[in-house]
Amino acid sequence: MLDTNPLYEQLWSAQARSWGNRTDWGTTPRTASMISLAWGLPDPATFPANQLTAATELVLRDHAATALQYGNVQGYRRLIEVLCKKFKDDEGLTVTPEQVLITNGSSHALSLIARVLLDPGDPIVVEAPTFVGAVNTFLRALAAPYEVLLDEEGIGFADLDRTLGHLQAEGRAAKFIYTIPSFQNPTGLTMSFARRHELLDLAVEHGALIVEDDAYRDICFEGEVPPSLFAIDSTGDIRGHVIRTGTFSKILAAGLRLGWVVAPAEMIEKLTAFKDDGGTNPFAAHVAATFAEAGELALHITDLRQHYRRKRDIMLRAMRAYFPRSVQWTEPTGGFFIWVTLPERVDTTALQQRAWEEGVDFVPGARCFASGEGSRYLRLAFSYNTPDEIEEGIKRLGRTLATVL
Amino acid sequence: MLDTNPLYEQLWSAQARSWGNRTDWGTTPRTASMISLAWGLPDPATFPANQLTAATELVLRDHAATALQYGNVQGYRRLIEVLCKKFKDDEGLTVTPEQVLITNGSSHALSLIARVLLDPGDPIVVEAPTFVGAVNTFLRALAAPYEVLLDEEGIGFADLDRTLGHLQAEGRAAKFIYTIPSFQNPTGLTMSFARRHELLDLAVEHGALIVEDDAYRDICFEGEVPPSLFAIDSTGDIRGHVIRTGTFSKILAAGLRLGWVVAPAEMIEKLTAFKDDGGTNPFAAHVAATFAEAGELALHITDLRQHYRRKRDIMLRAMRAYFPRSVQWTEPTGGFFIWVTLPERVDTTALQQRAWEEGVDFVPGARCFASGEGSRYLRLAFSYNTPDEIEEGIKRLGRTLATVL
Repeated sequence: MLDTNPLYEQLWSAQARSWGNRTDWGTTPRTASMISLAWGLPDPATFPANQLTAATELVLRDHAATALQYGNVQGYRRLIEVLCKKFKDDEGLTVTPEQVLITNGSSHALSLIARVLLDPGDPIVVEAPTFVGAVNTFLRALAAPYEVLLDEEGIGFADLDRTLGHLQAEGRAAKFIYTIPSFQNPTGLTMSFARRHELLDLAVEHGALIVEDDAYRDICFEGEVPPSLFAIDSTGDIRGHVIRTGTFSKILAAGLRLGWVVAPAEMIEKLTAFKDDGGTNPFAAHVAATFAEAGELALHITDLRQHYRRKRDIMLRAMRAYFPRSVQWTEPTGGFFIWVTLPERVDTTALQQRAWEEGVDFVPGARCFASGEGSRYLRLAFSYNTPDEIEEGIKRLGRTLATVL
Repeated sequence: MLDTNPLYEQLWSAQARSWGNRTDWGTTPRTASMISLAWGLPDPATFPANQLTAATELVLRDHAATALQYGNVQGYRRLIEVLCKKFKDDEGLTVTPEQVLITNGSSHALSLIARVLLDPGDPIVVEAPTFVGAVNTFLRALAAPYEVLLDEEGIGFADLDRTLGHLQAEGRAAKFIYTIPSFQNPTGLTMSFARRHELLDLAVEHGALIVEDDAYRDICFEGEVPPSLFAIDSTGDIRGHVIRTGTFSKILAAGLRLGWVVAPAEMIEKLTAFKDDGGTNPFAAHVAATFAEAGELALHITDLRQHYRRKRDIMLRAMRAYFPRSVQWTEPTGGFFIWVTLPERVDTTALQQRAWEEGVDFVPGARCFASGEGSRYLRLAFSYNTPDEIEEGIKRLGRTLATVL
């Protein structure tokens, strides 16, 4: 079979043409000795395989006729109810089943949101830095992302106000603001309560929606997470401005590919209309619902907090031991990531090659900015590796940094 | 939470605005006594729950670290290899892993194809009648479907030639021809070998791709299925013109949501770039691969052929016994559906209400035409119901038909 077809060039859609060759994910050389601190993968040691085997046995004994059949496009009803109960138990938040959509992970949720809200050229606002996977999803819909820098409290208020005002003055108001307010990817920072209110006020004032990516809320190591933007929006006078996404990938198993959207019912209905997947995996959804209904999910999340807190502590301790003094970093109270700031003259994209030679990998900061700026930063994940790998990886990275500092 | 937001009307994308309120799927009153012959659901009695439980136990014992983790976006490699082997064993067809993409069912495959190939307003050609779920997916991408009527051999040759020529003369050549050549939905008909060649020649001549939906190939009751358009295209001089989709939904379990695309590697790469789902369900993919590698899939397909043939026979026998003489229908040699032709004056959309009163449901023909024409037809599925339900459902439908014939 020939794999090139002169037809293709003219047949691709504008989206596909624009997306071009941007399929080059992760060029890390994967060798046995390479320690990758790059990707925010959950730790396989935490996967509750035995409990999921037990849950599957129950599902296929008692619910095979629905678990193995096409499902409701909005999602398996029992799993939706599990989520409604979780919101109530954890956050005191009342969410009705009509306000929940089950998706193939939260990346699928963001993709649906892009399809329903974005026309080619539409401006959106994203944090700088941010989760570049989401930005790629928005770019595939040909959106035009505008960056607003983060400060210690969250998305920069003055900068956001200016950007939204500027866009509105040009007659092309931002469709939405994409934010990860809690244990942000990549910085690990959490938006303050006050900033959440300010952000919501600005969004309302400028007629933009907020897309709140709340993937890490449950991975909280100490203290309380401020209420979600969705929760704040649901209790004030202003309502229906927030679409919140979440996922079972960080709190149960990424391989189940189960995420969710919480939003006004009108929005859920529209997203559902664009969800042509025959119902998000009924098999996995039955297994997850059975696991959660048995009380296992809440217990598991408690365990995960201890587990990931310990790994954060190990990474921070190693960084203090092995990193040159001119390096700074965040100390997240939850999530999977630490954000590292180097002196301005350092370019982490160039540094990556040297790190590979030392046998360690990270995400260069430039990959976390829609603009490709941010070359003095880098992202580290403490979620995936074993304690020994974290220690050794940070040691190697310390050696790498020492060559340029 | 208020569910209306004045913002929304201006925030929906052109796609979502155009799609509007087309979320009204199936208004069938669902009562205990209603027998629905409408939907082409697999029969839950065929779901191999015990073997899938055993497969899951093996997967979570031996492969939990990958089955519960994010997956390769192209799909789980072992499942891709299962498919390559299946194509070789069943059809003598050589397909390399680079030519396969695993998707969340074949509906997801069609959705990806639409995203990568279709711009708003793009003409495409669809069979009349056809699988309206696919047409809806293409409409969501704002495509303009042109219908070509089926004849006994498949998509009408002269009509197709005329339509493609007409579009080309207007400077807006069809991007692709969507066809279900084997055990077609909704007619159950199979395109002849000669027509397959003619279709391919026409597509090449007019610079259109072919999207071949091959969901029912394995559900073959007697004789041989002609080679797929993809296979014909792969062996002749003309190459790379066919994108073929398939699914585990009909041959294993729809609830696993596993389908596939077979296409030139260049096309697979492009489709993969638009697949933002963190890898199609690694959990379900591991279970399906383990099931297939144990030899269970081939055995199961043999059983399914017997099972569905028997149900087809029961439905055909009941139709001969209970339907008025002026009614005609197809006698499919595979698949899930029978297509019924009534005298021209009958409108099956109007007739549906009366059928509901009798306690039976079907798909009115107009729902199987992109144009909404076809009111004298109706589609029956023999796949889902028990033999007794099929018999009783056809009896009720016979009574319904007798009121207008």
